[in-house]
Amino acid sequence: MAACCRIIFEAEGTRAREVSGLEGSFRYISEDAVIGEGTVLGFGCVVMDGVVIGEGVTVGHHVIIHEGTRIGDGAWIGDNAVLGRQPRAGVSVTRAVSVMPPLVIGKRALVGTSAVIYAGSVVGEEAMVADLAAVREDCVIGRRVRIGRCAVIGCNVRIGEGSVVQAGALVTSDSRIEEEVFIGPGVYTCNDKYMSRREFPLRGPVIRRGASVGTNSTLLPGVVIGRGAVVGAGAVVTRDVPDGCTVMGNPARPFPA
Amino acid sequence: MAACCRIIFEAEGTRAREVSGLEGSFRYISEDAVIGEGTVLGFGCVVMDGVVIGEGVTVGHHVIIHEGTRIGDGAWIGDNAVLGRQPRAGVSVTRAVSVMPPLVIGKRALVGTSAVIYAGSVVGEEAMVADLAAVREDCVIGRRVRIGRCAVIGCNVRIGEGSVVQAGALVTSDSRIEEEVFIGPGVYTCNDKYMSRREFPLRGPVIRRGASVGTNSTLLPGVVIGRGAVVGAGAVVTRDVPDGCTVMGNPARPFPA
Amino acid sequence: MAACCRIIFEAEGTRAREVSGLEGSFRYISEDAVIGEGTVLGFGCVVMDGVVIGEGVTVGHHVIIHEGTRIGDGAWIGDNAVLGRQPRAGVSVTRAVSVMPPLVIGKRALVGTSAVIYAGSVVGEEAMVADLAAVREDCVIGRRVRIGRCAVIGCNVRIGEGSVVQAGALVTSDSRIEEEVFIGPGVYTCNDKYMSRREFPLRGPVIRRGASVGTNSTLLPGVVIGRGAVVGAGAVVTRDVPDGCTVMGNPARPFPA
Repeated sequence: MAACCRIIFEAEGTRAREVSGLEGSFRYISEDAVIGEGTVLGFGCVVMDGVVIGEGVTVGHHVIIHEGTRIGDGAWIGDNAVLGRQPRAGVSVTRAVSVMPPLVIGKRALVGTSAVIYAGSVVGEEAMVADLAAVREDCVIGRRVRIGRCAVIGCNVRIGEGSVVQAGALVTSDSRIEEEVFIGPGVYTCNDKYMSRREFPLRGPVIRRGASVGTNSTLLPGVVIGRGAVVGAGAVVTRDVPDGCTVMGNPARPFPA
Repeated sequence: MAACCRIIFEAEGTRAREVSGLEGSFRYISEDAVIGEGTVLGFGCVVMDGVVIGEGVTVGHHVIIHEGTRIGDGAWIGDNAVLGRQPRAGVSVTRAVSVMPPLVIGKRALVGTSAVIYAGSVVGEEAMVADLAAVREDCVIGRRVRIGRCAVIGCNVRIGEGSVVQAGALVTSDSRIEEEVFIGPGVYTCNDKYMSRREFPLRGPVIRRGASVGTNSTLLPGVVIGRGAVVGAGAVVTRDVPDGCTVMGNPARPFPA
Repeated sequence: MAACCRIIFEAEGTRAREVSGLEGSFRYISEDAVIGEGTVLGFGCVVMDGVVIGEGVTVGHHVIIHEGTRIGDGAWIGDNAVLGRQPRAGVSVTRAVSVMPPLVIGKRALVGTSAVIYAGSVVGEEAMVADLAAVREDCVIGRRVRIGRCAVIGCNVRIGEGSVVQAGALVTSDSRIEEEVFIGPGVYTCNDKYMSRREFPLRGPVIRRGASVGTNSTLLPGVVIGRGAVVGAGAVVTRDVPDGCTVMGNPARPFPA
């Protein structure tokens, strides 16, 4: 990556021309930012101190890139995305919040319109975080993972290579998702057995390699979904599901029984 | 519609005055855009090449309107909305993505704050797409349809006149929804029977005229909900529901039995 | 609060310096706005007529603050948030929409990235509305309440002090939630028994003090969840739940039976 700050091109769709400054494009770009050759930035972008953007990156309009964020070559960032914001606890939140290291976005990754990704997380190469999705701090999103529209990924989550989290799903904080897992639309996971009423060590579910979790199902705190297991749509999973097993219903039971 | 480019008025709530350029309002408006009389644009808007905005349209602050988008007379576009973006497949997505024709927004339609609507879709007259909702490419949203907050409409969806999709619902790609259908909040629909494990021709549900689908229910791939049928809240619908029938439960069964 | 308009500091993370105008930061700030000492505003903010921002407030980049909104001392507003927009009914919406008084945000409240909060509502001191959440008009959100990511709060909702609405939940219009209530992720509530098919006085649920409503459960219109009651994850609640009672299943039944 060439350390060529301010070699900026107009965004796709406008007549590409090199611009030397901010005039007329309403951008703020820190003088401490580094932007690679062939990268284009849309109107109204905000690029803060210490940001490093690779070569051939497309950054949409009104994108906000916070301090120190690193974006790999060939990535594509949708309009209005907010990258690398620090977490900020509400007054009544119990989980301590510390200053996170900068966000890292891998090569050829794709970030959707108005997606929000926090500092302290790593988004793998060729991964996708779709429109209006949120990924909190301290997450590791593997290579080629896809996070759907309006999905929410809590903090301290691991998602293995090639897994999919579909639209509107919630992967709660402290979840562990292995490789090639399919999490359907609107799946909700829990990490707090007593819903804030008692002390409880928060534990998200563990979903093993190749498992499939059906649309709009619910996973209780700490349940383990085994390798290649299948959770039917709308199931409410209250116990561990063994490797290769299929469960359905509320509460979920093995199928065939 | 008068082809009077650059007849722009300040947004509602500021002191309306005609402005001849961009100074002080931080807008980018392509010289190839056409903006009708009486239309107001907020601060920070981006209007790309070939956009055509009708008369008496209100465009909020920071709205981004991509190439060629057409907006009908009297429409109202909320702050931060992104209109007409092209689809962009992640590296690992199987569905091919092609360049879509421009988005068309009908007369007097209403688009909410931070809503995202893709190129290749048509939003009917007097339809509403509420705040933070997303509508993908190749959709036809009928007249007076209402799409609720944070709802997601996949690609290649048809929604007939007067139908309602409430907040947080997901209408999956390739769904067919007829007229006067009610889809409650948080309804999730599927189109992939094998959750990516086998080849499967993706099939969303078909929801016939006047059917009502209750809150937080789940519709399996390809199910047909008959005319005037009722799906109870929280039901998991695994089979077709005949015209006029009511179903409830997990799995859903006819009621009364 | 000092009535010291235009005492503005650059946002955190840029080198703080007093700025006397808008040059280079692409902000619009009405001359009728009042901004307290020690308040910082990010790039691209829009602050409309009559807005009053207290002392020591942090306003992120591209934030839009509509007419008359009041923000208390020490509040923190995330990037792209839209505060105080007026409701705007679609053509086919039955609920009448009137002009609402300005939004009030309490001291030390926290508003997330791309959150949308309407005029006519009050957000209490030290409350939190997380990223991508929406709060409609005519709501009273109590002190230290937390609204999670992508959650939607309908209009005319009351939420008592210290209650929590987790990510992706929908609190439908006309709901009443008392103090110290826990509403889990993805809970959906209804207010329309006949799903628009007949006249029905819209009635959201009533959730009494200290009740806990589990992840991805569904509450039918007008149900009352008693004091300290517990609704299990994935339950579909069709009847009132007495004080202290636990219910589970679809339909929800007392547990132990």
